[in-house]
Formats: sequence, structure tokens, C-alpha cells
Amino acid sequence: MNFSTVNIVMGSQSDWKTMQAATEVLSALQIPHTAGVVSAHRTPARLQEFAARAESEGTKVIIAGAGGAAHLPGMIASETIIPVVGVPVASRHLNGLDSLLSIVQMPRGITTATQPIGEAGAYNAGVMAAQILALSDSEVRERFRAWRQQLTDSVGYEIQP
Amino acid sequence: MNFSTVNIVMGSQSDWKTMQAATEVLSALQIPHTAGVVSAHRTPARLQEFAARAESEGTKVIIAGAGGAAHLPGMIASETIIPVVGVPVASRHLNGLDSLLSIVQMPRGITTATQPIGEAGAYNAGVMAAQILALSDSEVRERFRAWRQQLTDSVGYEIQP
Amino acid sequence: MNFSTVNIVMGSQSDWKTMQAATEVLSALQIPHTAGVVSAHRTPARLQEFAARAESEGTKVIIAGAGGAAHLPGMIASETIIPVVGVPVASRHLNGLDSLLSIVQMPRGITTATQPIGEAGAYNAGVMAAQILALSDSEVRERFRAWRQQLTDSVGYEIQP
Amino acid sequence: MNFSTVNIVMGSQSDWKTMQAATEVLSALQIPHTAGVVSAHRTPARLQEFAARAESEGTKVIIAGAGGAAHLPGMIASETIIPVVGVPVASRHLNGLDSLLSIVQMPRGITTATQPIGEAGAYNAGVMAAQILALSDSEVRERFRAWRQQLTDSVGYEIQP
Amino acid sequence: MNFSTVNIVMGSQSDWKTMQAATEVLSALQIPHTAGVVSAHRTPARLQEFAARAESEGTKVIIAGAGGAAHLPGMIASETIIPVVGVPVASRHLNGLDSLLSIVQMPRGITTATQPIGEAGAYNAGVMAAQILALSDSEVRERFRAWRQQLTDSVGYEIQP
Amino acid sequence: MNFSTVNIVMGSQSDWKTMQAATEVLSALQIPHTAGVVSAHRTPARLQEFAARAESEGTKVIIAGAGGAAHLPGMIASETIIPVVGVPVASRHLNGLDSLLSIVQMPRGITTATQPIGEAGAYNAGVMAAQILALSDSEVRERFRAWRQQLTDSVGYEIQP
Amino acid sequence: MNFSTVNIVMGSQSDWKTMQAATEVLSALQIPHTAGVVSAHRTPARLQEFAARAESEGTKVIIAGAGGAAHLPGMIASETIIPVVGVPVASRHLNGLDSLLSIVQMPRGITTATQPIGEAGAYNAGVMAAQILALSDSEVRERFRAWRQQLTDSVGYEIQP
Amino acid sequence: MNFSTVNIVMGSQSDWKTMQAATEVLSALQIPHTAGVVSAHRTPARLQEFAARAESEGTKVIIAGAGGAAHLPGMIASETIIPVVGVPVASRHLNGLDSLLSIVQMPRGITTATQPIGEAGAYNAGVMAAQILALSDSEVRERFRAWRQQLTDSVGYEIQP
Repeated sequence: MNFSTVNIVMGSQSDWKTMQAATEVLSALQIPHTAGVVSAHRTPARLQEFAARAESEGTKVIIAGAGGAAHLPGMIASETIIPVVGVPVASRHLNGLDSLLSIVQMPRGITTATQPIGEAGAYNAGVMAAQILALSDSEVRERFRAWRQQLTDSVGYEIQP
Repeated sequence: MNFSTVNIVMGSQSDWKTMQAATEVLSALQIPHTAGVVSAHRTPARLQEFAARAESEGTKVIIAGAGGAAHLPGMIASETIIPVVGVPVASRHLNGLDSLLSIVQMPRGITTATQPIGEAGAYNAGVMAAQILALSDSEVRERFRAWRQQLTDSVGYEIQP
Repeated sequence: MNFSTVNIVMGSQSDWKTMQAATEVLSALQIPHTAGVVSAHRTPARLQEFAARAESEGTKVIIAGAGGAAHLPGMIASETIIPVVGVPVASRHLNGLDSLLSIVQMPRGITTATQPIGEAGAYNAGVMAAQILALSDSEVRERFRAWRQQLTDSVGYEIQP
Repeated sequence: MNFSTVNIVMGSQSDWKTMQAATEVLSALQIPHTAGVVSAHRTPARLQEFAARAESEGTKVIIAGAGGAAHLPGMIASETIIPVVGVPVASRHLNGLDSLLSIVQMPRGITTATQPIGEAGAYNAGVMAAQILALSDSEVRERFRAWRQQLTDSVGYEIQP
Repeated sequence: MNFSTVNIVMGSQSDWKTMQAATEVLSALQIPHTAGVVSAHRTPARLQEFAARAESEGTKVIIAGAGGAAHLPGMIASETIIPVVGVPVASRHLNGLDSLLSIVQMPRGITTATQPIGEAGAYNAGVMAAQILALSDSEVRERFRAWRQQLTDSVGYEIQP
Repeated sequence: MNFSTVNIVMGSQSDWKTMQAATEVLSALQIPHTAGVVSAHRTPARLQEFAARAESEGTKVIIAGAGGAAHLPGMIASETIIPVVGVPVASRHLNGLDSLLSIVQMPRGITTATQPIGEAGAYNAGVMAAQILALSDSEVRERFRAWRQQLTDSVGYEIQP
Repeated sequence: MNFSTVNIVMGSQSDWKTMQAATEVLSALQIPHTAGVVSAHRTPARLQEFAARAESEGTKVIIAGAGGAAHLPGMIASETIIPVVGVPVASRHLNGLDSLLSIVQMPRGITTATQPIGEAGAYNAGVMAAQILALSDSEVRERFRAWRQQLTDSVGYEIQP
Repeated sequence: MNFSTVNIVMGSQSDWKTMQAATEVLSALQIPHTAGVVSAHRTPARLQEFAARAESEGTKVIIAGAGGAAHLPGMIASETIIPVVGVPVASRHLNGLDSLLSIVQMPRGITTATQPIGEAGAYNAGVMAAQILALSDSEVRERFRAWRQQLTDSVGYEIQP
């Protein structure tokens, strides 16, 4: 188990092909990050150890992706005070609607910052993590501002047929 | 924390008005049971203690009810090998569809015995617990058989206007 | 029609490619099981004969999978006191949401232990059957405990790129 | 158990407040009908007896209403060749969407003539039964034609403020 | 425009690959039938002519399939007293859920006999038409009874691996 | 049957309590309008007469509201070239989701300008009708512009506790 | 940024393969139109400039397509008084149900003329734009009338096997 | 327009009865906050001014609540780099499912931290804001830690009958 400013965890190895999009913005903005598999259901002890250590290991934001019952983001949120950004991985049969509801519909008091279903959600989890870090890190803030400007500038008006 | 043959737990005190229906059949069949509040999100340590002790305390079946993100049944299931019967408590805005999906859509390897949404589900959780116990307890089995016959006999054909 | 400790039945031959996952854990834990086709709609008499004989033939748990209107699990449950574990087979147009609701939303008094939609649900049906049997069979219990430990141990933290 | 040209059955006594709307058109068109409770789950033997006797007792159309898992219409359809008109009774939590899918999504070979959710569906079940009977009964046909004309005539253009 | 005992109509030529399944049982039972395209939206005048003539041309049952907004079955039902069996053709984006609701949720007084979504629904529309015709045609009735027996007999218990 | 610049029609008298909101903006902008009941299912001939006459009677925009299967807007659209603004009236059991899908999911070639479910949709139908008329009527345009400014001005920033 | 009688805008370049269907009817009816990318989220300033200029540049109808959160049509509608025809582009995971709800469920006062999900919606957006323009342009009206007649004439009754 | 560390905005005055729950945790943790109405649709210029000024006015987190099409959170997010916490206010007809999808399903690059539907979501928005602020404010962090402990301690195990 390794820790960094942003820790990306996911319920299974197969979620990586969705979750790796979370690293795009983090890498572009030079925000240290690391990724690993933590299963709420198959490795609950690892989840507890991970959540218990994250704050003291210096992690600022946790990005957690899971599909189906998708308990991972909410359960990590219940064991740490670090913000947890939740990514609903698209499930096989219900297209991630189950994942989305399981992650977002948290009860009063414990919550996640839920992102869109699937790869766009993983990508945006990186964006949200950067925005949170930018609040107290002026270098990240300026890099983010530049990245956002670039995002805007990259959208041409002309249709490419 | 107290234990019995069947332990009924729920995510919050407010779930009791739904979950108490689980005691009807258990009481009718003289199956020892007890109930308490265990919140996956607000009291994760209690959840772990509860799940870790249940088997050695003699609990045979756990009935767990929760609403919304509803992580309780699945998280208990991940920490014990005792069968967990899950009850989706109706949520305020999505009528329990979120609770149902969060409880039933478990990943390969860890699972719950999901019941219907709401009070009928709590009632049926008691029925399912009894059926499971009846497999190895001939007294419960005969009482259950009689109860089922009564259920059938109580259904009159005539419409009561 | 043949019987075993766990009987797996399904609504049609085509459900087998989903339902065979139910045999994985049963085989791994050396739990005797058998499988066959019983259609609630096309062979109602077979359903009644099957359900009526199962208990006296020594069956302890029935796993029933069906798709669409998916009446099989619930109708078997209405004709026996043995626990019925229901598996919603993914339907062609509604992805198994119809199957799930038809299996889980049972009325007060008769119920199934509903599993996730599709292959994961079939797999987990085997898990749930094993957990139920483990309650009264200490050999199955210890094998299950070891299997669960293995499940946990098999989840590496490192992402495999 | 009593039989008539049209037999209305429902899963529980509480469905009557929805299902009685089925009698409105039948009464208006002087089509003999009777009603009773047959529960697929609590009284499967009654269901089988009912379905087996209906044809020889002279029943021409069966109207069957049920809520939730709603197996009644489909299971009757599997045990008789008489047309079964299915009415999805509104369920408490899912507003009858579960009832509708359970009744309509029948597999190839056995089917129901599904009506709208709730009281409108019960009312329309009476209409559909009348239309079916009208095919071979010219008196019913002419009464139905007049009733339909009246339905049309009763719709005023003017808004009643 | 041609008429027969059973008239199959559909909203567009592309629905034929779904709707042709309706002919299977009708052909097997030697029930005369014909098929054509009638679009509620693109050819409303044809719809009216079709519906107005059907009864006097000797049509007994109309099978109407459509997708999306799927107004065809309901609009035909509003212009004739012949029973209309509705088939929700699977739509491209919502998988036929829109088609199903548009066909089944008819208002009090005008209704359709709604079948399952897609090809199974088209097939079952043929079954329902046969059941309705069997009420007043003893030859069809006996052929249908034999067909149903065959359906039952064709379901083997043994899994074909 | 009466006609005006904007004709508001609805499937039944009971839709008026939703649909009358359509008159608010029209009245405020002094756009002549009238309202009446036209049922696609119970009065198909009236629908045809209404749609056929509307253009030559000087109607510029038709607002059509209906619930459930909600065929009215789409069927009017199929019989006239005047723009039809569709309003999904909230249905009893499915809250207007059925109405919305039935109105919006029209096939290629015939369409409606669908508005939100319920009273907000009726209100906005008046807004959309005004926007369409404003294109060719400068007085309506200037009144609409003023009305929109007022709408903006009426939104205070301060929370009223 | 270029303007024409009908301006087609979309949230991203990738929407073009859906949105180009909007040009079919416009081209057939010789209605001037142009297309470009305007992203509500990535280019909000462009959206404001586009919406502010459209009326004075002579645009009569705006067709706006977007997927997912799909804020583009509603946000343009909030910044101009020209009618906005909204097209829900099918989203990757929820098939455009999210796009549809985001576009249609506008609050009282600001609205769009929502079309079907996907390519049919884009095509119909062209149809609706033409119908709106036809109100004040008799040449477009006669061309549209002819086009509609052709649409009707092109629907053959005979099934092409 | 006034600014504070946390700015709570909502689409209409009527959202306040939901959104005021966001102030509970902020008040308890002594985090400065203010609230006001900003409508994406009725006051787009106010939205732009608000979003443009927020960062320089010292706002660290924006909480934005809206119902139905619910464009407010996403549109603010597109005009600032401050994190936006989105709250789906329950809509009248679709219970906030539309609000949830409109807020969460943002495209790659611009995003919100979506919370649960309704009052629980507003409450949790306050929690998430506090967690974000706690990252760089040790006093808030310790107060939050104490508040969380209290939350845990307040959950009694005993059922209150």
C-alpha cells in the first residue's frame, strides 16, 4: 500500500481501464498520485487500514471507483475525514445506474463527491481533485487555470466533417 | 450489543418502523431474535465488531435493513460467513429503488439474500431466516410448515366487499 | 428429474450459460449439486412435481434462475419450504431489470433470496447456498472459511497495467 | 370457487378496490362475471384448480390482477388455453412498474393481454374482455358498439371551468 | 390493403424483422393472416381506412407493432371494436421501454392487449390471437391445445452442455 | 369547436387543472387563444376534424396536453403542418414519465415541441407558443422581450426566510 | 462564428454524427442553415456571444444538441428569445435518458422545444424548424406541404421481405 | 450579492426549504457562509457575475442546489475554478432523478461534487464543504474531527420503541 497526495483506489483490477483516466489531469498538473486495488467486499481489512492511514500519510484527496453495489467510496468516506471523490464504474447490466445511486445516495453526515458514470467520471475525478488541491496550493491553482484555458481554447467552432 | 439466533440490525433508528415486521414470523415460530442499530457509515467500528463477534456469539442469520446507499447488508456480509438477509428500506425520494440496487448488486464472492423493498421485505426477511433455520432444526421446520399451511388457509376465495 | 443437496433449475436451456457459474463455488467446496430445466410457464406440472419432491429427496437449497417475467423462483418458493435462491437472468431488452423486480418483489409470506443480475448473481447463488449449508455442516463451514480467505488473499493491491 | 363467462381473480383481498373497476363495463354490457381471490404464492393449489376447471366450467375470459412480483396472470396463463387479461395493480413502492414488467414480459409461448397499471387497467380489462366476447356474440357486439358510441358522445369539447 | 382473419400491421418496414415472429404460431395453426405497413404518423389516413374496414372485411384480431412513441396500436383501437394486440418494438435508445409504456398505458375505455417487448412479443401476439380465435372455433382450439402440449413436451429437463 | 391564434387542446376535462397554466403567458402577452377537449382515443373523428381545420381557421400554434399513452400531440402533428407543442400531463402511477416518452419519442418526419412534465410544461407551452409567434409579429416580440426582462427582474438574490 | 436562418449548434464535435441529420430536411426545403460547436461547459463565453448575437444576425430558429448533462439548449434559451429546438444526443451509459431529462425538464419561464433522443431527434429538429419558419414564409410552407405529402406517399403498404 | 468562505446558491427561493440544511454543519463548525438565489435560466447574467467574482471575493467552496433541468451547479462550474458542490433538489414529478442526472452527468473537463437528492444532499453539501476546507485549515479540521466523533457517538445501539 502506497500513499501520495491523491490516492486512486478501485474495487477491482478490471476497473483500471475506466479509472486510469483519473490520472490524465493529475499528471498534466504535476500532482503526485498513486493507484491500487481496495475491495470493500473482498478486502474490508485493507479498506480500513487504507482509510485509517491515508490522512497521516499525507493524502489530501482520495478518488474511489467501483461498480454495481459500489460500496467502496462511501465506506472509505466513513473511515476518514479526507474528501472522497466517487466514480461510478459502468456495470455490466445496468450501465452504472446502480453504481451511481450506490455512491451518491449517502445518508446525512457521511458523503462523497460523486462524479459522472464511467470514464468521463474518472477523468473528472482528477479534475475535482485538482480543484480541491488548488485552493491551498497556488502553483496547482495557476497550472489548473492554464489547463482550463487550454480546454476552452481547444474547442473549435468549425465542424470537422 | 446483544446477540441471539437471529440478529436484526438496521442503519438508523428510523428504520425500525419498517424493520419491526421482521419480528412477526420469528416471534410466531419462537425463534430467538434481537434488534439494534448499526450504521455502516456513522459507526463503521461497531459494524466490524458486530460482524466479527456474531458467529462466535451463536448468531445463525443476520437480517440487515438500510435505505439509500444502503451499504449495511453488504458490508456485514464482507466481514462474516453467516448468511445476511438484506432488506431495502424505502428511501424518501427514490422509493427504495436505490436501496434495492445497492443491496442486491453485490460483486462475485460476497452476497446477500435480498428481500423486497419496505415492510414486506422486512416481513419476508423473517420468513427467509426461518426457512434457513428450519433446515437444521426440526422443531422450527414443523412450526414453519404449520405456519405456511395457516397462511394458505387464511386466504379466502370470497371477495369481502 | 434428479435431486442433490443443491438443485439448480432454470427457465430455459439458454439460461445455462449464465447459470453454470453457480456450480463454481459448489464444486470448489465439494457440495453435491445437480442442474436441470424447469419452466414455470411451459412446464408448470414439472415445476409442481419438482417442488413437491425436493424436500423429501434431500435437497437443502434450490437455486432458480429465470429472465423477463421470471416467475420460476417465486413459484417454486410457493410450493416448498426449502430456501430458494433466485437469480435474475439478464433479459434481452431490459437487461434484467424486469427479471430482478419479478424475482425480488414477492408478497408477504413467500420469498426468495435474490441475487445480482446475470452471471455474478449465478456465482453468488452458489456462495449463498454454501453459506446456508455451512450453518449445519462444519466441514462445509471450514472449507467455506478457507475459500473466503483465499478470495481475500487473491486481491492484490498493485494495479496490473 | 365459482365460474362465469368472465372470471375476475386477484392476488389478495386488498386488490379489490382496484379490480372492481373491471366489473363496470361487464355489468353495463350484461356480461355474466364473478370475482374471487386466488394467490399464486399463498394458494398455488387453488390457482391450479381454478385454471384447470375454468375452460370446462364455461369461462371464456379470465381477468387476473396482481401487484409487485405479480405472478398470478402469467401462472394462470400457463395452465389454461383461455385468454388471460392481466392487470398490474399499483405496488406500494414502485407504483406498479414492477407489476407491469412481471405481467407483460412473458416468455415465448405463454402470454397475457396486459392492461394499464391500476384502476384504469382494471376498467380496461373489462373492455378487452367485452371486445373478445363480442367476436362471437352479436348481442354483446351491438351493446359494445353502442357503449363505445356513448363513450365518444360523452366527451364534450367545452372546458368546464 | 388486404384483409384476413388476423391482420398484422406495423409502423414501418423495418419493424418486419421483429414482427414476422407473429406469423409462426398463426401459420402452424393454419390461421389465415396477412401483413402490411400502416404508420400512425406518416399515413394517418391509411390508418383510418384500415381500421374502418377491418371489421366488415372479416378481420377478427389485429396485431399492431410499433416502436418509440408507438401510437399505432392505440390509435387503431380507437377506431374499431376488434381486439388489438399491441407489440412494443424495441427502440434504438430506450430498448422498447418507451414503446411499451406508449402502448400499454391507455386511458379508460380504449385499450390494447399488450405483449412483451420485441420478438418475443411479436411471437406471443400470434399466440394471443390464436387463443382469442380458439374461443369460437373448435378446430383452432384443438390445434392450439395440441400446439401447447408440444410446447410443454419440447422442454427437456436435461441441460445440454 | 372554436379556433384562435393559439389552440389549446387536452385529452380530458381533468387535464384542465394542469393545462390552464398555458394561458398565463398568452393572456399576459395579449395573444388570442382558446381551449377545448379533444381525445385521441375516445374522439378520433374530432381530432381529425380539429387538425384538418386548424390551419385554414387561422391557428398558428397548437398546444396539446395528454397523460399516460398520451397520443394526442403526436396524432395532431400527423394531421397538420402547424407546430404542435406537446405537454406531458403527470399520470397517476408513473408521474408523467410515460406521458413524456409517448409525446417526445416521435419517429423521423412527424414531431412535437415537447415541454416539461406537468404544470410547468403547460406554462412553458405558452412561452414557446409566444416565442414562435414573436418571430413574425413585432408587437408580440416586444411584449415578450419585456415579459422576459420582468421575469429576470423578479428574481431577488436575497433569501426570504 | 457564422449565422443563418437556422443555426445548428452542438456541445462537441463528436455530436456531429448525430446532429447532421438536422440538415436533411432543411436542405431539402432550401432553408439556409449553418452549424458549429458551442460547449456550454467548456466555452461559456462563446455560448453567451452566440446567443446574444443570434437575433440581430437574423437567425430565426436555433437547433441545439447535447448529451449527458446537456445544458446547451437550456442555457441558450436563457439568453435569447429565439425558439430553441433541443436534441438529446444519446449518452454513452444512459442512452440519452439523462440528455432528454436535462433538456426537457426546464423551469417555468425558459424552455426548449425538445425532440426525440438521437438521430431521429436531430432529423425532427429540422422538421420542427421548418414548421416554425413555414408560419411566416409561404414558400417554405408550400415546400413543406409537398415534402410531407411525399413522406406519406413513400410509405408502401406491402411488406418487403 | 454577498460572498463568504462558503457561498450557497439555489435556483429559486422555493429551494431554500431544502437547501437550508446545508447551513447546519457550517454553522456548527463556525465556517462563514452566505446564501442567495441565482437562477441559471432566469438570471444568467447574475450567474456569470457571481461565478466571475467568487474567487477574488475569497469564496473557497460554492454549494449550488437546483431541481429539474438543474443547470445551475454545472454552469457555475464552467465559469470558475472553485469547487462546486451540487445538490439535486427533489423535483415535483420525477422526485429529483432528473435533477441528479442533470447535475452529475457532466462532460469531461468541467464537473461538480454531486450530493444526494434533497435535504440529505443539502446537509451533506455542508459536510463536503467542511471536509474540503479542513484540508488547509487545522482549526476547521479539528472541529470537523470532533463533530464526526459526535456523529458516531450519537448513534445508540438500542432500538427506541
